[in-house]
Amino acid sequence: MLRLFEISKSNEEVINIIKNREEENLDLVDTVSKILKDVKDNKDKALRKYTEAFDKVKVKDLRVSENEIKKAFKSVEEDFIEALKRAAENIEKFHEKQKSKDYIISEEDGTYMGQRVLPLERVGVYVPGGTAAYPSSVLMNVIPAKVAGVKEIVMVTPPSKAGGINPYIAVAAKIAGVKEIYKVGGAQAIAALAYGTESIERVDKIVGPGNTYVATAKKLVFGKVDIDMIAGPSEILIIADDKADAKYVAADLMSQAEHDKLAASILLTTSVEKYKEVVKELKKQVEELERKAIIKEAFKNYGMAIICPNLEKCKELSNIIAPEHLELMVENPMELLGKVKNAGSVFLGYYSPEPVGDYFGGPNHVLPTSGTARFFSALSVDSFVKKSSFIYYSKEAINREADKIILLAEKEGLTAHANSVKVRVIKE
Amino acid sequence: MLRLFEISKSNEEVINIIKNREEENLDLVDTVSKILKDVKDNKDKALRKYTEAFDKVKVKDLRVSENEIKKAFKSVEEDFIEALKRAAENIEKFHEKQKSKDYIISEEDGTYMGQRVLPLERVGVYVPGGTAAYPSSVLMNVIPAKVAGVKEIVMVTPPSKAGGINPYIAVAAKIAGVKEIYKVGGAQAIAALAYGTESIERVDKIVGPGNTYVATAKKLVFGKVDIDMIAGPSEILIIADDKADAKYVAADLMSQAEHDKLAASILLTTSVEKYKEVVKELKKQVEELERKAIIKEAFKNYGMAIICPNLEKCKELSNIIAPEHLELMVENPMELLGKVKNAGSVFLGYYSPEPVGDYFGGPNHVLPTSGTARFFSALSVDSFVKKSSFIYYSKEAINREADKIILLAEKEGLTAHANSVKVRVIKE
Repeated sequence: MLRLFEISKSNEEVINIIKNREEENLDLVDTVSKILKDVKDNKDKALRKYTEAFDKVKVKDLRVSENEIKKAFKSVEEDFIEALKRAAENIEKFHEKQKSKDYIISEEDGTYMGQRVLPLERVGVYVPGGTAAYPSSVLMNVIPAKVAGVKEIVMVTPPSKAGGINPYIAVAAKIAGVKEIYKVGGAQAIAALAYGTESIERVDKIVGPGNTYVATAKKLVFGKVDIDMIAGPSEILIIADDKADAKYVAADLMSQAEHDKLAASILLTTSVEKYKEVVKELKKQVEELERKAIIKEAFKNYGMAIICPNLEKCKELSNIIAPEHLELMVENPMELLGKVKNAGSVFLGYYSPEPVGDYFGGPNHVLPTSGTARFFSALSVDSFVKKSSFIYYSKEAINREADKIILLAEKEGLTAHANSVKVRVIKE
Repeated sequence: MLRLFEISKSNEEVINIIKNREEENLDLVDTVSKILKDVKDNKDKALRKYTEAFDKVKVKDLRVSENEIKKAFKSVEEDFIEALKRAAENIEKFHEKQKSKDYIISEEDGTYMGQRVLPLERVGVYVPGGTAAYPSSVLMNVIPAKVAGVKEIVMVTPPSKAGGINPYIAVAAKIAGVKEIYKVGGAQAIAALAYGTESIERVDKIVGPGNTYVATAKKLVFGKVDIDMIAGPSEILIIADDKADAKYVAADLMSQAEHDKLAASILLTTSVEKYKEVVKELKKQVEELERKAIIKEAFKNYGMAIICPNLEKCKELSNIIAPEHLELMVENPMELLGKVKNAGSVFLGYYSPEPVGDYFGGPNHVLPTSGTARFFSALSVDSFVKKSSFIYYSKEAINREADKIILLAEKEGLTAHANSVKVRVIKE
């Protein structure tokens, strides 16, 4: 259930297992390129064609009406709406603190310079449809954009079999503050967002998860618009001391494994006893879970444990693995936090299971996967702004600094650069 | 010299010219992939092989010694060193203000959560060698990393024909604070930074400009490490009112055009007279410039002007074009700045030519090109950090919120997520 690895200096074996989970899908590039080109050329007509072909439905209006959203609110349980609203509040509160500020530096000679932080003007959020609808993902992708000040947040999502919209998704979109929703999915939806059609105006950035067609389309339109990270398979790493409740540890390892058969669950513990207890708990709890087949398959390939001589060593290995989710199920988690260098999101103590972060607490659940927490960050308010610098030199300043700028430009062989300063120099 | 376009609603013709300058180089992917794989497998041996093949030189030690740097300082003019040091101070001062702060939110029930900003641990900077050495580029790429707190900043640059290092580059590296420099260039250098070899330890992020081999290699290792934007051809847009000095406007348009034949120079002005004067000045000044052949070729293809009825219209068109460099050569530039939505860097007034920003003033000169200022930002301190969130829920909090989290998880069909909360609920 949880393959035990020998402790070693870097545990490269474990790291390689984590990093090599991805399945390459290069053969999709051709298919997706054709769809992109078709939508670019034939716009709405192509969107309708692909929706009929792939979603097996004729959609009347691509845009979701106010009426459809009202209906969705009526069909969804009230306590669900309440829970979602509360989650949205928490997420908004957490992200408010991420706002970057403009700044200016001014000098006595009249020179001033600085940086402005400007929201992107229009953002597209992709939301998968089908059987697994994720309203939480709507909140996590839309709210940071809203906090950043993005005025136009557009959502695209595949139509249901009846040509409608999943009511949970519609409700989440409304709560998060989306004003435009279109019933179109797949690579064709990404094309519409990147190039624009008669119905859907093009955006500046596309975010949100999707299947391999969607991910490939996002990669291909990158540069034309900005995109978020392409998420790889997901992982959790738990550092547990001997006081951690094995029941909690087992439950948390499984919460990650149920995502898909490529999800990885890693336990680092200082106690052999704890490892054994956790395995026992896993075997017991898994049988009660709906998605036990997926969980078992994920564990078979990517369920791993290492017994470490001390927490220091656990921390070292965790920093090398750079997990998406890191749970510190130890007595003094805050003390350990400062030593964590590479982790998407860190869950502290015995009462902070990963789903608190996935659904409710406030931090974003769009996190860097497969060891990329070494250099990537969670989706944030910063993902939805651009920063633009400005500089004003006074006549006094340009004359004073002219020689230095001219010299630097000339040494690089860029004499027209030097010339643009020279023409401004006032000879005395 | 400066092709005149009719004013229209969006001036799509101009925008298409700007955006379609790039030459595709897909055929390089195969060649570069082979080099990457070879370096991954054969490490230093492969690096030496490619250096001999491409740079036509046998390098004794890949790493630049302290002695080589001392020699470089002796061979470079003192006033150049002084100018570079002053530029470095200005750049550091400007970037210091970009530092993001950690934050924490704590609740009465014992819950706390927040975000830590952590510097990347090791960054690689590519610096092109050959005839055109750009010490300014060393400062612009290294200093933001240093300000971010990156401990290990590594530089790679092709060896000179004698197997040494360009002294201007060495001096700039030392001033900027680089402690490790390796004499290796091309795709092989990128491979070394991404995978590591016996001599060069792998990094977390690679930045810096390079030829198409370098750019292709960076694209291919992206994900394994982070990279900066791949810069496209560069552009300047000048908004000039009737008081702008045509001599200055012409000089600044040419300072951009000398970069390469794909560089674009665009003039938006409210005055036909000004346009005519600028053309006259261009014809006069260009003959005095060393790189006049490149400038003339760039102008032939990408020199453009539009006469606008007012500054408002100039601003509108500029926002659609989203230029890398924007000069506001108008009487009250600060008033216009607030209306600028899309521009990499903005140069205000009559005495702030682009080279002030390229070399000296403080803002970064690594900017989004070809209209990507709509969604990309300049290189900054933020480019060299990662942000990691943390969350601590108290026993009280998890019990109070359990129902909501469980409901949200169950509606998404993720029952193992729900289970990890359920096991923690204390039944009364």
